[in-house]
Amino acid sequence: MASNPNLSSLGEFGFISRISAATRPGAGVVTGIGDDAAVTALTPGMQLLTSTDMLLENVHFRCSWHDPYRLGRKSLAVSISDIAAMGGIPRWCLLSLGIPKDAALGFMDDFTRGFLDMAAEHNVSLIGGDTCRSGNGLVISVTIMGEQVPKRIIRRTGARPGDEIWVTGTLGDAALGLRLLEEGKLKDGFGQFITRLLDPTPRTEVGQFLAESGLVTSMIDISDGLLADFGHIAEQSGVGGQLNLAALPISSAFRAISEGFSQFPYHLALSGGEDYELAFTASPNNNEKITSLMKNSGIDATPVGIVSSLPGVTVLCPDGSSYIPPTPGFNHF
Amino acid sequence: MASNPNLSSLGEFGFISRISAATRPGAGVVTGIGDDAAVTALTPGMQLLTSTDMLLENVHFRCSWHDPYRLGRKSLAVSISDIAAMGGIPRWCLLSLGIPKDAALGFMDDFTRGFLDMAAEHNVSLIGGDTCRSGNGLVISVTIMGEQVPKRIIRRTGARPGDEIWVTGTLGDAALGLRLLEEGKLKDGFGQFITRLLDPTPRTEVGQFLAESGLVTSMIDISDGLLADFGHIAEQSGVGGQLNLAALPISSAFRAISEGFSQFPYHLALSGGEDYELAFTASPNNNEKITSLMKNSGIDATPVGIVSSLPGVTVLCPDGSSYIPPTPGFNHF
Repeated sequence: MASNPNLSSLGEFGFISRISAATRPGAGVVTGIGDDAAVTALTPGMQLLTSTDMLLENVHFRCSWHDPYRLGRKSLAVSISDIAAMGGIPRWCLLSLGIPKDAALGFMDDFTRGFLDMAAEHNVSLIGGDTCRSGNGLVISVTIMGEQVPKRIIRRTGARPGDEIWVTGTLGDAALGLRLLEEGKLKDGFGQFITRLLDPTPRTEVGQFLAESGLVTSMIDISDGLLADFGHIAEQSGVGGQLNLAALPISSAFRAISEGFSQFPYHLALSGGEDYELAFTASPNNNEKITSLMKNSGIDATPVGIVSSLPGVTVLCPDGSSYIPPTPGFNHF
Repeated sequence: MASNPNLSSLGEFGFISRISAATRPGAGVVTGIGDDAAVTALTPGMQLLTSTDMLLENVHFRCSWHDPYRLGRKSLAVSISDIAAMGGIPRWCLLSLGIPKDAALGFMDDFTRGFLDMAAEHNVSLIGGDTCRSGNGLVISVTIMGEQVPKRIIRRTGARPGDEIWVTGTLGDAALGLRLLEEGKLKDGFGQFITRLLDPTPRTEVGQFLAESGLVTSMIDISDGLLADFGHIAEQSGVGGQLNLAALPISSAFRAISEGFSQFPYHLALSGGEDYELAFTASPNNNEKITSLMKNSGIDATPVGIVSSLPGVTVLCPDGSSYIPPTPGFNHF
């Protein structure tokens, strides 16, 4: 009856039907939304990859910064990125939403549209979820499922002393975008930083290329910043490493804007987080093969350091001194 | 240093390590907690079953009612129940937590212990998750994964006119427990209702027995009340049904306490929800086989109605009139 219906008038099952109607049948989906559990069929010979992420309003995102469409996209992108980091093929996802009572249906429709567009771009099918009312802000929980043949799966545990440390794309743009938003500097020309923050692109294809190449010894996605995330590889591989500050891939836009800073903001590139690029390690003997592979993939990758047998991660400054970052990473508590 | 550490002093990774250390290796787990994604191997020939549930403080639970140990148990039990409702074998789970800044470590440890005890009782392995700070109350999101051979999976869509409608166990005890808590009537002798509400038992074994029997045409778990949940079977099977009020399985304790009510509280058994029993349909020709099967399983099951070809679900009163329930179910918005 209402010309501008809200979620209360639509009801829980009405909202689920709306989402369900917007989903498309996908590969391996036997039973999607609508039963007690979804039923899917893995490709024979493959193992299952699963990961989950929780995003809370005013902790992970602010509705004043994040438009609902891009929030929907990012909610799934950060999970797809975890499958990419294993070299996996993303397949299916589950979406749970705790929705504030006063949420506008238009907001939730835009969110859903963004989520499903991101899903379609990466051949991911939404197969289930949960919806409920939230007393305090929007609550988003996403589970992603992917698959890969066992010998192609790349873990954090395989880095070897002497391996080169690589990263895809450029670092620090998203962290700079966050700083610009925090400082209210939403000028023209800053769009690419804001986009890197609000609408990251998971490196699914590159992750699979690297997995299929058999050249990569360990991999992780950079969500907390290269320093912290390579730190996870180092710890879990029982090694250490040295990152070379001068080698970090920095976008030309980042370099240009940084001229206004008293010090070059390396810490944004090292520890800012939310890059959703891939960091990986490989034998230096495979440097040329990887360079050629990445050229074909259309995504840049840059060697930024060397794995060492000594534990701990150090950062070498251009003048030969050791860099001490202002913060060692991000502690969610 | 602190004798009573809180989560802030432990940190996110410290808390995850604590949980990780308490988990045990499980069947099919190739890589558990600690990488970008978990890796698991399905049993060859089986399909994957997945479901997810979100539980929010002061929406789904109150910390003044739910002690952390039983809250942990229930958080997983409601998801395991979804696998049981498909006739599936629960295998692996993911746990995401949004934790208030002032949450005591002891509370979260008790929660985790309850969660992992429930997991162990149903041979479920915790293989991953996410933790973050919550600005407003505890946020819990659980994803469950299970498996079953394709022809054994039981959906909501298979009910046929003439089938009998069955339910396991007794109905209404949990809803009565909720009413007692709401009215502050926490007397001795009410424990079993409170237990049904706070510590439900998913019907995993019964669900698998029924799946393996090949006798069941549709199945669902009763979370929103039999009336609403059988309504889902009816709608998704393109049928209707008549429930017989006098046939509903009511515990003797429920019957005894109901003497204090002016009307017998059938609505608690029909629409109260949170029973986590199974409702299923089967040909009346299989009545004896199912009775015998259930006897062997140690769980009661009761025929409570008949599937009809006409759409809609009606409820027959003992005097032959039609029952009009006070509420048609629970709308989460």
